Amino acid sequence: MKLVDIFGTLKRDIDFIERQLYKSIEGDDPLLSETSLHLLKAGGKRLRPVFVLLGAKFGEYDINKLQYIAVPLELIHSASLVHDDVIDDAALRRGKPTVKSKWDNKIAMYTGDYIYAKALMLVTELKNPDIHRILAKALVQMSIGEMEQIRDFYNTNQSVRNYLLRIRRKTALLIAISCQLGAIAAGVSKEHSRLLYQYGYNVGMAFQIRDDLLDLCGTEKAIGKPPGSDMRQGNITLPVIYTLQHSSNKEKLLAEIDTIRHQADGDKDTSKAIEYIVNGPGIKMAEALADQFINKALDALDQLPEMKTRTQLKEIAIFVNKRTY
Amino acid sequence: MKLVDIFGTLKRDIDFIERQLYKSIEGDDPLLSETSLHLLKAGGKRLRPVFVLLGAKFGEYDINKLQYIAVPLELIHSASLVHDDVIDDAALRRGKPTVKSKWDNKIAMYTGDYIYAKALMLVTELKNPDIHRILAKALVQMSIGEMEQIRDFYNTNQSVRNYLLRIRRKTALLIAISCQLGAIAAGVSKEHSRLLYQYGYNVGMAFQIRDDLLDLCGTEKAIGKPPGSDMRQGNITLPVIYTLQHSSNKEKLLAEIDTIRHQADGDKDTSKAIEYIVNGPGIKMAEALADQFINKALDALDQLPEMKTRTQLKEIAIFVNKRTY
Repeated sequence: MKLVDIFGTLKRDIDFIERQLYKSIEGDDPLLSETSLHLLKAGGKRLRPVFVLLGAKFGEYDINKLQYIAVPLELIHSASLVHDDVIDDAALRRGKPTVKSKWDNKIAMYTGDYIYAKALMLVTELKNPDIHRILAKALVQMSIGEMEQIRDFYNTNQSVRNYLLRIRRKTALLIAISCQLGAIAAGVSKEHSRLLYQYGYNVGMAFQIRDDLLDLCGTEKAIGKPPGSDMRQGNITLPVIYTLQHSSNKEKLLAEIDTIRHQADGDKDTSKAIEYIVNGPGIKMAEALADQFINKALDALDQLPEMKTRTQLKEIAIFVNKRTY
Repeated sequence: MKLVDIFGTLKRDIDFIERQLYKSIEGDDPLLSETSLHLLKAGGKRLRPVFVLLGAKFGEYDINKLQYIAVPLELIHSASLVHDDVIDDAALRRGKPTVKSKWDNKIAMYTGDYIYAKALMLVTELKNPDIHRILAKALVQMSIGEMEQIRDFYNTNQSVRNYLLRIRRKTALLIAISCQLGAIAAGVSKEHSRLLYQYGYNVGMAFQIRDDLLDLCGTEKAIGKPPGSDMRQGNITLPVIYTLQHSSNKEKLLAEIDTIRHQADGDKDTSKAIEYIVNGPGIKMAEALADQFINKALDALDQLPEMKTRTQLKEIAIFVNKRTY
C-alpha cells in the first residue's frame, strides 16, 4: 500500500510535484539528468512532499508556491541517498541498482552535489530568508549526522542516546522541517508551525527506528535489498544496542559482529547475529521506543486545530509505525 | 609573493575573514572540524574573499556584513577542492596530503558536503534572497562543470569552445559572483555590479588557463604537486587542445596520451607528451587567449568609477596573468 493511496484528495497535487521533480533535473546535462532521474524514477514514498503539503493545509495552501518547498526537500532526500550509497557500497536501492553501482562513486558524488545545488536553487524561488536559513541549518546537521554514522561504524559500545542523536540528524530533522516549511510557506502561525515541526520530528524518529527494525526483521522483497545490510556496513542500530545492553547473548552477538566486520564484503553473513537479536528483547524494546515517539507526535497533533488534515497526519503516523515484517 | 601583500589596506580585513573561516567550521564534530581545517590551514590565495571585499569597496563597505559572503565563497571553493581530490585521486594539494589521501574518499565526500552546507548556512545571515539565488545558481553550474570534466576525461577530440564552457563553470563563475555578491551586499548599483561580474568572470577564465599552463610548464615546487597532473587524470586542457589542432606533432601527442591513459596510476609518465606541447604552438596560443580575457577584464574595469580599488583590481588581473613558470 502506498501512502498516497490514503489521500485521494492530495493525489492531483502529489502528481504535480512528481512531474516537477522530474522536470527540475532535466536539460542541464544529459549524463546528470540520467543519473539523477535514475534514482527518482525508482520510486519512493514521497513522504517529504506529502508532509509539506499537509503542513500547508493549516494555512493558505498554494501548490504553485509549495512546489518550491516540496520538490527541493525530496531532491535533498534523494541527494543524500546517492551519497549514502557511495558510503555504504550499496549495490541496490529500492530494488534497483544504485547510481554508484550502475556508474561509479565519482559520478554518484557529483550527481549528489548537483541534486543538492538544484534543490537550493529551486527554494530561492521563494523570497523568504527564514526558509533558506532553516533549510541550510538542516543540511549542516544532516552532513554532521552522516559523518557520525561513519565514525560510529562497528562501534558496539555506543549508547541509545548516541543512536538517537544520529537518527535525529540523519532522518528526523528533514521530516520535521518538511512539515514546518510547508506551514511557513503557507503563512501558518509560529506556534502551529512549531507543533507541526514537533509532529514531523517525532514521526521521523519512529520512522527511522522502524526502518532499522525492518532491515533486521524484513524480507529482501519487502525492503528492496538483502536484510542485515546495516550490520554488514557496520551501522549499529537500536535493536542491536538494546540486545547488547540487555540480552544474555551479548558476548555471542559481539563475537558475531566482530566476525562480520572482518569478513570480506561478499562473504558477510548476518543470519546468526540476526537470530541473537530476534530472540532477545531488542526488537520489542525498539518497537516500544518507536511507539513513544509516535505518541509524542500525536500529542503535538492534538494541539493543532481539528480538521481533516489533522486526521490524515494521524493516519500517516500510525502507518509509519505499522509492523510490516 | 602573496596576493594579500599587494594590499596592505585590506590586510586587517583579510585576517578577520581568515579567522572567521576557521571559526565557521569549529565545534560541530571533532572529525569534521579536523578534516575541514586540514585543507583550509594548508593556505591558498584567498582570492575569492579578496574579490568580495574589493567589489564591496564600490558601495557601502561593511566587513561585518561582507564576512557572510567572503567566508561562504571561500568555503565553497574549499568544498569543491575536497570533492575534486576524490575524483582526481589526488594525493597532494597545496603541497600537503589531501583529505582523501589522509583519511579516505568517503570522509572527503562528507567533509565537502558539510563545508558546502556550512557555507549556505552562513550566507543566510544576510536576508537577501537575490544573493541566495545567485549563489545557488552558481553551485548548480559548478556541479555541471564537474560532471562535464569527468565526461571529457581523455577526450582528445574536444573543441576550444568545449574547454572554455567547462572552465567557465568550474572556475570563472565563482570568481565572477565573488566580485558581484560583494558589490550587491554593499548596495552597489546594478550596472556597476554587472561590470564587476564581467571583470571577475574574465579574470577567472584567464586564471584557469594560467593554472592549466602552470600544470604543464611549472616545477613541482611551484605548483605543490607533480607537473602533468591534469594529463594523468585525463583532463585535456587548452594547450593540449591547441597542440592537437595546430602542431605537426599531433599524431605523436595523441599516441602519448593514449599510452598515459592505459598506464597504471603510479607509472603514468607525461614528460614526452609535455615535450611535444612545449615545443609546439599550444603554450603561446593559450597565453594569448589568457591575455585576451585579461584585456576584457580591464575593459570592464575602465567603465567603473576611478578609485584606488579599481587600480588594485587592475593589479590583481595583471598578477593573475603573470608568467610564473
